[in-house]
Amino acid sequence: MVDARLDDFQAAKERTAAAQGLPAELSRALGDFLAAGGKRLRPLLCVLGWHTAGRARGQAPAPVVQVAASLEMFHAFCLIHDDIMDDSATRRGRPTVHRALAALHQGRAGRGAADRLGTSAAILVGDLALAWADELLHTADLTSAQLTAVLPLVDAMRTEVVYGQYLDLLTTGHTGEDVEVALRIARYKTATYTCERPLQVGAALAGASAAVRSALSAYALPIGEAFQLRDDILGAFGDPAATGKSSWEDLRDGKHTVLMALALQRADAVQREALHTLVGDPALSEEGAARIRDILTATGALQAVEGMIAHRRARAQHALEQAPFPPAATAALRQLADATTTRTT
Amino acid sequence: MVDARLDDFQAAKERTAAAQGLPAELSRALGDFLAAGGKRLRPLLCVLGWHTAGRARGQAPAPVVQVAASLEMFHAFCLIHDDIMDDSATRRGRPTVHRALAALHQGRAGRGAADRLGTSAAILVGDLALAWADELLHTADLTSAQLTAVLPLVDAMRTEVVYGQYLDLLTTGHTGEDVEVALRIARYKTATYTCERPLQVGAALAGASAAVRSALSAYALPIGEAFQLRDDILGAFGDPAATGKSSWEDLRDGKHTVLMALALQRADAVQREALHTLVGDPALSEEGAARIRDILTATGALQAVEGMIAHRRARAQHALEQAPFPPAATAALRQLADATTTRTT
Repeated sequence: MVDARLDDFQAAKERTAAAQGLPAELSRALGDFLAAGGKRLRPLLCVLGWHTAGRARGQAPAPVVQVAASLEMFHAFCLIHDDIMDDSATRRGRPTVHRALAALHQGRAGRGAADRLGTSAAILVGDLALAWADELLHTADLTSAQLTAVLPLVDAMRTEVVYGQYLDLLTTGHTGEDVEVALRIARYKTATYTCERPLQVGAALAGASAAVRSALSAYALPIGEAFQLRDDILGAFGDPAATGKSSWEDLRDGKHTVLMALALQRADAVQREALHTLVGDPALSEEGAARIRDILTATGALQAVEGMIAHRRARAQHALEQAPFPPAATAALRQLADATTTRTT
Repeated sequence: MVDARLDDFQAAKERTAAAQGLPAELSRALGDFLAAGGKRLRPLLCVLGWHTAGRARGQAPAPVVQVAASLEMFHAFCLIHDDIMDDSATRRGRPTVHRALAALHQGRAGRGAADRLGTSAAILVGDLALAWADELLHTADLTSAQLTAVLPLVDAMRTEVVYGQYLDLLTTGHTGEDVEVALRIARYKTATYTCERPLQVGAALAGASAAVRSALSAYALPIGEAFQLRDDILGAFGDPAATGKSSWEDLRDGKHTVLMALALQRADAVQREALHTLVGDPALSEEGAARIRDILTATGALQAVEGMIAHRRARAQHALEQAPFPPAATAALRQLADATTTRTT
């Protein structure tokens, strides 16, 4: 239902642009990006958050679906701008938006002109996604009470995710032993934005009680951190065919992750030297990536992160046992906790 | 008053970030940008729009001021991202945000690492400005009726400005004789966003009648186009000390403007050859820029654009004569029409 709403919105935007004689590339690039897949985790959590308040059974009403769609549109904004900053080549198994738009203008005169235009146009596609996320929210036909409850959550989420991305940028290429910094990035960049805020937004739409809201946070923060820790493992060990991303991009870029921080803490002199040489090397080879993976395993860092994930999943499951949610919502959140922490994509 | 509101908002954001141990660079870069000046034209028009509905005399109430501040914050977003796309070096007489942030990280290891980080961080500063423009709007303490009236205008404005910027990108470096395309860029990139939408937003806050709203559009669109035509002239002939921008950046980048389109239409073979060689040349010298200016003058293109500006100013003044605004609002709009079309900065 979220996808149908996104499709309709997109189609309406394309019709308006066409009627005004405006180029279709920007909205088409955004539409292609949204259609290429993604887990739709944030919309799902938004709808689940709405169910936790237990107001109604069955399908979520249209305004809830539209707010959920707005969160997915916001996520598109984040990923499109992130991919520019990381200069990632692929996402969801396809060229990233800036690469696709550069390819579209390949014939353009001037050295690097197509790449520059691709990047600039992708900045605009991201801007459009952020503006349209807002428009979806504004036109969701919410009551004043719902708007008043939801807008501060969305505003906070946006600021958090920008700060999280900045922390990520600052540490990329400067990976070190500091686990706390890596966890803080996970918290800002993922835990609140991927889990806590979508659940809170859904709950706010249903006028959830303070008890429901705090139970959601108790569940969402550990699960969000676990989600990011799993992402870090997939960024080093994942199967590109499954994740849709290059399997050693995080290693080549030198992302500062908990996994890497723990490996550096535990490495002997030879291993540490190898990590410092290989991690963040723009010319990292498959052999180099394999050597890094060996060290991540041999130092026990991989196993330690698996332990952290399991610990967080247990905390989240424990929070669910105490939570005042309807049984069906609890069961769905329990299943989601398992799925997001054991996933391979 | 708009500046005081922006300062307060900024200070609150910095306090929150500091309390959470988050870096101050992003909000500081945005604050410095806002404090560096700018004409505050959009907030002024928003407040004037509110006055045109004639509900009250004297100072605008706090919610109107905050919405006006939100438009200035949105403008900061546009300029910061535009400067990245154009790779402009200076704005408002200071380094642009991406250049300032690159300088901040100058010591960073790796070739081009500081420049890349500066650009990435500036994308985030722009994103933050867009998100915060929204937050200012959401927290302006508007009534439901005001929100319902204002949000569609703001949503439309955002989409328009992104499309306008894309049209600008597509034609930059490919300047030609097409005056209609150049005027369309002026309309999307400037006329609606700089003039019509801010006036409409202010009027909507005051619950303006349909007669007031259509009179505002009749005034705003010609003035907005004239504003951009003046900008094009300043981009070629302006005094950098007054404009705060390099005087031949538009020429070096090959911006497709009405001025240039007319010059190409009217040029003889020698002049056309010179324009094709010089305009858009990344290594354009002061002598080359002077030669372009000579051609813009000799072909009569400069004078023709001055004529178009005068014609549009007259249309706007004529619209004011018919408009159902209070006399003080009409007088202010009349003065503004003169100021924005004869300005030198």
